[in-house]
Amino acid sequence: MNTYVYGYGPEGKERLIVVDLGVTFPDMDGSPGVDLIMADLAWLEQNADRVEAIFITHAHEDHIGALAHYWPKLRKPIYARKFTGRIGQLKLEEAGISGDEITIVEPRPHTIEVGPFKVQFVPVSHSIPESSGLVIDTPAGRVVHTGDFKLDGNPVVGEAFNPELWHEIANEGEGVKVLTCDSTNIFSPQPGRSEATLVGPLTELIRQQEGMIVATTFASNVARLKTLAEAGKAAGRHICLLGRAMRRMVSAAEETGVLTGFPGVVSPEDAVDLPRNKMMLIVTGSQGERRAASAALSRGKYLGLQMKEGDSFLFSSKTIPGNERGVIRIMNAFSEMGVEVIDDHGGLYHVSGHANRPDIEAVHDLLKPQIVIPMHGEHRHLREHMKLAQSKGLASEVATNGTMLDLSGEWPKVVEYIETGRTYLDGSVLIGSMDGVVRDRIRMALNGHVLITVIIDEDDQPLGEAWVELMGLPEVGKRGLPVADQIEDELSEFLERAPDKILSNDDKMDDAIRRIARQVTMEEVGKKPEVTVVVSRLMPA
Amino acid sequence: MNTYVYGYGPEGKERLIVVDLGVTFPDMDGSPGVDLIMADLAWLEQNADRVEAIFITHAHEDHIGALAHYWPKLRKPIYARKFTGRIGQLKLEEAGISGDEITIVEPRPHTIEVGPFKVQFVPVSHSIPESSGLVIDTPAGRVVHTGDFKLDGNPVVGEAFNPELWHEIANEGEGVKVLTCDSTNIFSPQPGRSEATLVGPLTELIRQQEGMIVATTFASNVARLKTLAEAGKAAGRHICLLGRAMRRMVSAAEETGVLTGFPGVVSPEDAVDLPRNKMMLIVTGSQGERRAASAALSRGKYLGLQMKEGDSFLFSSKTIPGNERGVIRIMNAFSEMGVEVIDDHGGLYHVSGHANRPDIEAVHDLLKPQIVIPMHGEHRHLREHMKLAQSKGLASEVATNGTMLDLSGEWPKVVEYIETGRTYLDGSVLIGSMDGVVRDRIRMALNGHVLITVIIDEDDQPLGEAWVELMGLPEVGKRGLPVADQIEDELSEFLERAPDKILSNDDKMDDAIRRIARQVTMEEVGKKPEVTVVVSRLMPA
Repeated sequence: MNTYVYGYGPEGKERLIVVDLGVTFPDMDGSPGVDLIMADLAWLEQNADRVEAIFITHAHEDHIGALAHYWPKLRKPIYARKFTGRIGQLKLEEAGISGDEITIVEPRPHTIEVGPFKVQFVPVSHSIPESSGLVIDTPAGRVVHTGDFKLDGNPVVGEAFNPELWHEIANEGEGVKVLTCDSTNIFSPQPGRSEATLVGPLTELIRQQEGMIVATTFASNVARLKTLAEAGKAAGRHICLLGRAMRRMVSAAEETGVLTGFPGVVSPEDAVDLPRNKMMLIVTGSQGERRAASAALSRGKYLGLQMKEGDSFLFSSKTIPGNERGVIRIMNAFSEMGVEVIDDHGGLYHVSGHANRPDIEAVHDLLKPQIVIPMHGEHRHLREHMKLAQSKGLASEVATNGTMLDLSGEWPKVVEYIETGRTYLDGSVLIGSMDGVVRDRIRMALNGHVLITVIIDEDDQPLGEAWVELMGLPEVGKRGLPVADQIEDELSEFLERAPDKILSNDDKMDDAIRRIARQVTMEEVGKKPEVTVVVSRLMPA
Repeated sequence: MNTYVYGYGPEGKERLIVVDLGVTFPDMDGSPGVDLIMADLAWLEQNADRVEAIFITHAHEDHIGALAHYWPKLRKPIYARKFTGRIGQLKLEEAGISGDEITIVEPRPHTIEVGPFKVQFVPVSHSIPESSGLVIDTPAGRVVHTGDFKLDGNPVVGEAFNPELWHEIANEGEGVKVLTCDSTNIFSPQPGRSEATLVGPLTELIRQQEGMIVATTFASNVARLKTLAEAGKAAGRHICLLGRAMRRMVSAAEETGVLTGFPGVVSPEDAVDLPRNKMMLIVTGSQGERRAASAALSRGKYLGLQMKEGDSFLFSSKTIPGNERGVIRIMNAFSEMGVEVIDDHGGLYHVSGHANRPDIEAVHDLLKPQIVIPMHGEHRHLREHMKLAQSKGLASEVATNGTMLDLSGEWPKVVEYIETGRTYLDGSVLIGSMDGVVRDRIRMALNGHVLITVIIDEDDQPLGEAWVELMGLPEVGKRGLPVADQIEDELSEFLERAPDKILSNDDKMDDAIRRIARQVTMEEVGKKPEVTVVVSRLMPA
């Protein structure tokens, strides 16, 4: 949910810029039924009049995914480079917002002046084309915001990392005051490897396969798509792209001119009729996503195509921690079909898009900042990065979500903790993660749900018996009898004996009925369910 | 859920033995609210009169966890060695079953004769004391069932792997017809390493720590507990064990004599008062389990003990795929406290309890079976193991759950697929995974739940208005109005207009009301909820 805010000005009146508006993805453990998770921007909305502009560093969902959801609340100019901007425009237009709200800008030396800020986009290499760092000049000094990056001298698609350019940035004026720096791979001790190292091993691998080969990677990793397609071509295969997100990325990259020379592809319809040993599919779903092409193929026929014994399936990707269950499910489904599953093989068929520890150090050394603020990663990554910076004599602090740091001094100083959290896109509605909606879903999933209706007549006397429905609970309990019946029996006894002062009081009725339902369910099935009680009172005519 | 059945005799009348009765653990994705997952033993229950006995190879939950739940349905003699048997007895006794149902047996040459089977327990090394393979002799030949094993010549606790013993087993009589063999680490290309290699690096690591050190591993890995405790002692630390499961394992191991020389420990109460740099805690919860000691410490004070900046936390374990989210949550919570988190460091502080690929090959070579049946692992592991065996000229087949193989010929032959599945322990009740109970919970968690009550009077006319309650759904929809009110409004309109033939028919009422509720919810919040409708009809007086 990358969302960063920089401010400059008198305390409480700082002018602000927003860097990135990202999302993260829900899971059953913590956010069942939720569609997307965004940062809670209540503070930024309250201070929207102070926001000058929004800058998007690159088109990964964790940096751009909330743009269309939050723009209506901020309504400020958006700046991005052409490919990123194109993806952003598609998102805005899908939400009924004009794509013109995004201003497409050129990289440095082009400079965007907004309020007290002068901002330049600086090309970096990453696992999506045209990823950019930002050079943000303020009257208090220069901030370099790396965005997501790696040091790749030959990234296949897009601009190579250019140390001279960064050397120049480090040595202009008073140099770099603050480096806000990607921390994702701080625990990876070896220098990162170039995208260009993959084409050889991949070609070799594809040549060895006797059946159809299917490869998956992130849809947005356009360089990898090109590497895979070229390796496939070199091994004598026709290429077919499966998955809407992938085709969308490739066409946005071609439209904006960042991707050229992508090998010709065949349609799924044509692929069906081509010899299996001449076909290579490149498909979405490297993280085991249920609706993506790889999951669809693991379940059977998809667009007429079907995996068979003797085929092979390549994960040209790494499983993001937390996604293992979905990925393993797909691997085993293929295994059951007799399909060979090939993983990244210790990096032979995949390289990361993030800077490893020695690369991060190299950037510290190149930019010589006074202050390093680690970003992008879990707390343990940020902390490790801070320790690395401090060990080199640089000022550094971990800024967790909501932390406001004063960066104008020698050492970053926490000046405020903004109340922050998560906002969920739930269906078509934005809800707060603490609203209780998702908590109730989790409780129903863990404990089941008992519904009880009771009718009370005009004289505050029960009319008929209580009616009980169970949802998500065993029908039959320990004694071999229906649990609903047993709750109804207990409630009948209660209603018969309950004094008027309880029968006439909705809260007391609710409490008593709920307690009985939970107790019987606990005795019979060993679970304390969620209970909803509806007491309907007939009105005197 | 390891549960294997061997049979011998005329078709359909084979006498049977059961090897292991294990469980697996639920997760929110597929089995929310469930307590334990077991194999569905319907077939075995139907054929209980043919079962001679139950053999338990070792005391890991995935091999023994279902014993107390299923024994009442089978009621057959149970055989196990002393430590395994002790753990089994504790489980039976907790379930109100006599521990005497388990017969404690000595390893080979002791032989248990049941029906046509002669069974010997043979010591193997693994990550729990006294793990055993089984030599099962039948008139049709010898089966070796490895159980879970590794080749460890110095396992710290318990018996070393003894190649001479296995050589003897391979060369008695007509040798080994069938090898049923652990496949877990078939994808690990290096030979496995011994438990004994850990004590040096661990001692060194603990010496370097300046604050308190806390280490976690599987509670049942008694050898590791001893290694950790000895390393701690050697580094000048007092040892304190936290977590009920861990103390239970250590005392069962000591009672049965498999563990001796475990260093003295201090109680949590005493640990509080000892200098932090003289303390080492060994705690449960290496897989991120929410109720274990490591999770409790990551949340704050536990039994008076609390982690602080400068302390360190060691995972002397590997994260089982699927458990990453829970483990990462704990790592980051410690990071926020300023606690150093140390993982297995590529094997320096942890070794696996399973045989790696070269070790599996070594066992093939040692036992020279005609047939190899891969067991233990996902489908892709079993398939890889089968391919390895076949590449060496051995007959081999993958047997998925429910597969009945005829092993009497040259090549294993599938003779039947038993309908099988999963049984859930849900609270205190056993339910089938396909009963719909858990499906309803998942649906409520994904879609929310709408409850609607309508009262129909003696003349089949609605009495008052419909009442709507939402659970797990946003209160307010797209138009900024309460969703429940909008459903109620639509239902009022419907009830006003509904003809008698609908009002008098429960099924039609239910259908129509459900449809309206789903439609309004879809329009307002973009979700199709689960709906429960209760139509209460007043009876003519």
